[in-house]
Amino acid sequence: MAADILIRNARPMGGDPVDLLIRDGRFAPPGGDRPARELDATGQIALPGLVEAHTHLDKTLIGMDWFENRVGPTRNHRILADRKAKRELGIDARRQSARQVLQTLSYGVLHIRSHVDVDTEIGIANIEGVLETREALRDIADIQIVAFPQSGMLPREGTLDLMDAAMRAGADIVGGIDPATIDRDPVRHLDAIFALADRHAKPIDIHLHELGELGAFCLELIVERTRALSLQGRVMVSHAYCLGMLEPARQQGLIETMAAERIAVMTVGSPAAPALPLRLMQQCGLTVASGSDGIQNTWEPWGNGDMLERAKYLAQRNGMTNDADLVETMRICTHGGAEGIGLAGYGLAEGDFGDLVLVPARTLAEAVALTPQKRTVIHRGRILVRDGTPAEDLPRIA
Amino acid sequence: MAADILIRNARPMGGDPVDLLIRDGRFAPPGGDRPARELDATGQIALPGLVEAHTHLDKTLIGMDWFENRVGPTRNHRILADRKAKRELGIDARRQSARQVLQTLSYGVLHIRSHVDVDTEIGIANIEGVLETREALRDIADIQIVAFPQSGMLPREGTLDLMDAAMRAGADIVGGIDPATIDRDPVRHLDAIFALADRHAKPIDIHLHELGELGAFCLELIVERTRALSLQGRVMVSHAYCLGMLEPARQQGLIETMAAERIAVMTVGSPAAPALPLRLMQQCGLTVASGSDGIQNTWEPWGNGDMLERAKYLAQRNGMTNDADLVETMRICTHGGAEGIGLAGYGLAEGDFGDLVLVPARTLAEAVALTPQKRTVIHRGRILVRDGTPAEDLPRIA
Ligand SMILES: [Zn+2]
Ligand SMILES: [Zn+2]
Repeated sequence: MAADILIRNARPMGGDPVDLLIRDGRFAPPGGDRPARELDATGQIALPGLVEAHTHLDKTLIGMDWFENRVGPTRNHRILADRKAKRELGIDARRQSARQVLQTLSYGVLHIRSHVDVDTEIGIANIEGVLETREALRDIADIQIVAFPQSGMLPREGTLDLMDAAMRAGADIVGGIDPATIDRDPVRHLDAIFALADRHAKPIDIHLHELGELGAFCLELIVERTRALSLQGRVMVSHAYCLGMLEPARQQGLIETMAAERIAVMTVGSPAAPALPLRLMQQCGLTVASGSDGIQNTWEPWGNGDMLERAKYLAQRNGMTNDADLVETMRICTHGGAEGIGLAGYGLAEGDFGDLVLVPARTLAEAVALTPQKRTVIHRGRILVRDGTPAEDLPRIA
Repeated sequence: MAADILIRNARPMGGDPVDLLIRDGRFAPPGGDRPARELDATGQIALPGLVEAHTHLDKTLIGMDWFENRVGPTRNHRILADRKAKRELGIDARRQSARQVLQTLSYGVLHIRSHVDVDTEIGIANIEGVLETREALRDIADIQIVAFPQSGMLPREGTLDLMDAAMRAGADIVGGIDPATIDRDPVRHLDAIFALADRHAKPIDIHLHELGELGAFCLELIVERTRALSLQGRVMVSHAYCLGMLEPARQQGLIETMAAERIAVMTVGSPAAPALPLRLMQQCGLTVASGSDGIQNTWEPWGNGDMLERAKYLAQRNGMTNDADLVETMRICTHGGAEGIGLAGYGLAEGDFGDLVLVPARTLAEAVALTPQKRTVIHRGRILVRDGTPAEDLPRIA
C-alpha cells in the first residue's frame, strides 16, 4: 500500500478545483494529518482510471517483428491467420499481455477486460500466460480474463471442455462468439456457455458480430437466457453491430428489453462497422462500455489502447461534435466501462479506490478531442506515471 | 536556398537504403563534391512531403480559448455557427492559418490546399489574411488558396463579385459548395463558378456533400462542364459522398466518366459519412487525394492535420488492414494529393524538389498504422524539423 497523498487543485471531471486526499488506497474526506506526499495538479482534469472493457491481451505483437498482413477479407480468413500466427510467430501470451498493460498504463488505463483465446491447438496456455501477467502486474492494474473460443466452440470438439478448464484455472468470465455464423447453432452455443457460466457462477461476455435480423435474433436468445438464469447485470454483448441496423421501432424495443435485463453492450465505434445508436442507448438506460479490441495484431495493424482517444472515436463515428456528446463518450470510457464490467469502488468519491488520471486540459471535451499525452496516473495512491513518464519502479517485462 | 545536403541510408518509400543528395534545392544524381552537411537517416523511411489537399486554414481555433460546441446537428446550423464565430471570437485568419501551417509542418505536411471563406460579412478579409501567411511562410510550405463561398453564393447577393475579387487578389482556385442543397440551383451555381474559373484561367474545387442520386446528378453536371471548357485535370470534387451510395453499375460508370475527364476526388474518410470505394476508384484510374478538412474549429473540435494519420483513417474507414492497402492510402496522402492539387516537381526522383519526410518505421504499413511522431522534415534541402523538434530558425507567429 502506497503512503497517503494529497492531490492539490485537481478538477474532477472538469469541475472546480479541489484537493483530493487518498488514504490507505482510497479517497478520504479532507482533514486529519497532512500527508507527507503532495502533488500539484493545477490545470489538470482528474478522471477515474480509464476502463478498457474489451481487448485481446494475448494476441498483441507490440515489440515483435513487423507482421506483414496479407490476410483475406473475411472473419474466417482472419481467424485462420490468427491461429497460424500463434503457431508460427511464437506469440508469448504472458510477455505480450504484460507489454500491452504497461503501454496502456501510460494513458491511464487501470482496468482491463481481456478476451483470451482457448482452442484445441493451444489449449489454455494463453489463459495461463495472462493469469501470470495479472499476478505480476496486480499492483498496477486490474485485469479480468474472459475464456474466449476464438476459433469456434461447437465445431471444434473439445473446446467446451477447455473452456471449463480455463474457468477452473482462474478465468473470470465465460466468453462466446457468433452463435450462428461461426458456431452454426445459436441455441446450442448459447445454452452451452450459459450453462458453463451458471456452473461456475461467473458472468458472460459474447462477441456478437452478426448483422441485422440474425444478430437481433441472437440478442433475443441472449435476453431469454439472461432472464431464465437471473443473470441480470452479469451479461455483456460485445460489438452488437445489429443494433445499428434495425428499423427504429424494432431497434428501440430490443434496446429497452436489453436494458430491462441489465445486459451491457460494448462498442469500439469501429469506422468500418455499423454505428450503434449511442444517444438512444443512453436514453433507454442501457449500460454502454467501450474497448480497443485488438491492438497491433494479425487482425489490425494499429491501435494504442488509449481509452481517451477511444472516446474521441466513438464521437466521430456517431457524427457527434457537441461538448455534451464528448462528455458522454468520455463517460462510456470510464463509468460506463466500470458498470459494464462490474467494478466495485470505482469513481472519485470518498470511499472509492484511490485511482485517477490527471489530464492537462481546460474542459472534458477538450480532453476527448485533443487527447493530451502528458498524463499523470495514480493507482491506489501510488504515482505510476508522471506527466507521461512511467515511474522508475514499474515492473520490467522479461 | 539552403546549402546542399546528403541524407544517408534513407529508405525511399520503404525500399532499400540509399543516399539522397539535394543540390540547389532539388534531388540530384550522386557524385560530385561531397556536401558539407550530412544527415544520418538509418532506420528511417523517406516519404515526399505530405500533401494536405483540403483544409480550412482560416477557421482553426488552435491556441485560442476553448470553444464550447453547442451547435445544432445540420450543415446549416454549422454554417450559421461558423459565421457567428467569425464575428464574435475574432478569429484572425492570418494568425490562425500560420499556427496551423506550423503545427502540421512537424508532421511533414509541406503542401496545403486551403479553402478560405468569402462571404458578404467578411468580404475577402480571410483571403487577404491567408495570402499574408502564404507569403510569410513561403520558405517552409506551399499553400494553395481556394476562394470558398461557405455561406452560399447565389442566395447571398454580392458573393460572386467577392469571389471574383478574391481571384484578383491572388486566390489560386475557384471554390463551390453544394449546388443544390445550399445554393438551391445546381445549374446556375455551377455555370457561375465554371465561368469564373474560365475567366481567370484557374482550377476549380467544389465541396459536394450532396447524397445519393442528387449528388450523382451534380457530379454529372460537373463532368459536362469540365468537358465543355476542356478543364481536364483542373477540377477537384471534395467529399463526393454520393459515390459511396450508388448501385454498383451506376457507381462504376460515374467513376469511369470522372476518370476520363481527369476530375480528382478528395476524401477525408470521415467515419460518420458514406465511405468512398477506394479500391474501385484506384482500379478506374481516378485521382484520389485526401485532407484533414477543418482542424479544431467550430465544426469539429478535433484534428491535428497529420496526413500520415489520415492515411490510417482512410484504411480504417474502408475496413482495410492489409499492408498493401495501407501503402495505397499512404500513396493517396502523398502522390495522390500531389496529382490532385496539381503539384509540379513532386517526388523523390532526381530533379524533383528536395522535400522529404523521414519517419522511423520498418515498413510503409507500419508508418501508417503507428504514425511515429519523431519525424524529420526537409524542405528544399533545409532541415525544418529534426526528430520531431522544430528548427530554431522557423518563423514565429505574432
Ligand atoms: Zn474482440
Ligand atoms: Zn471542407
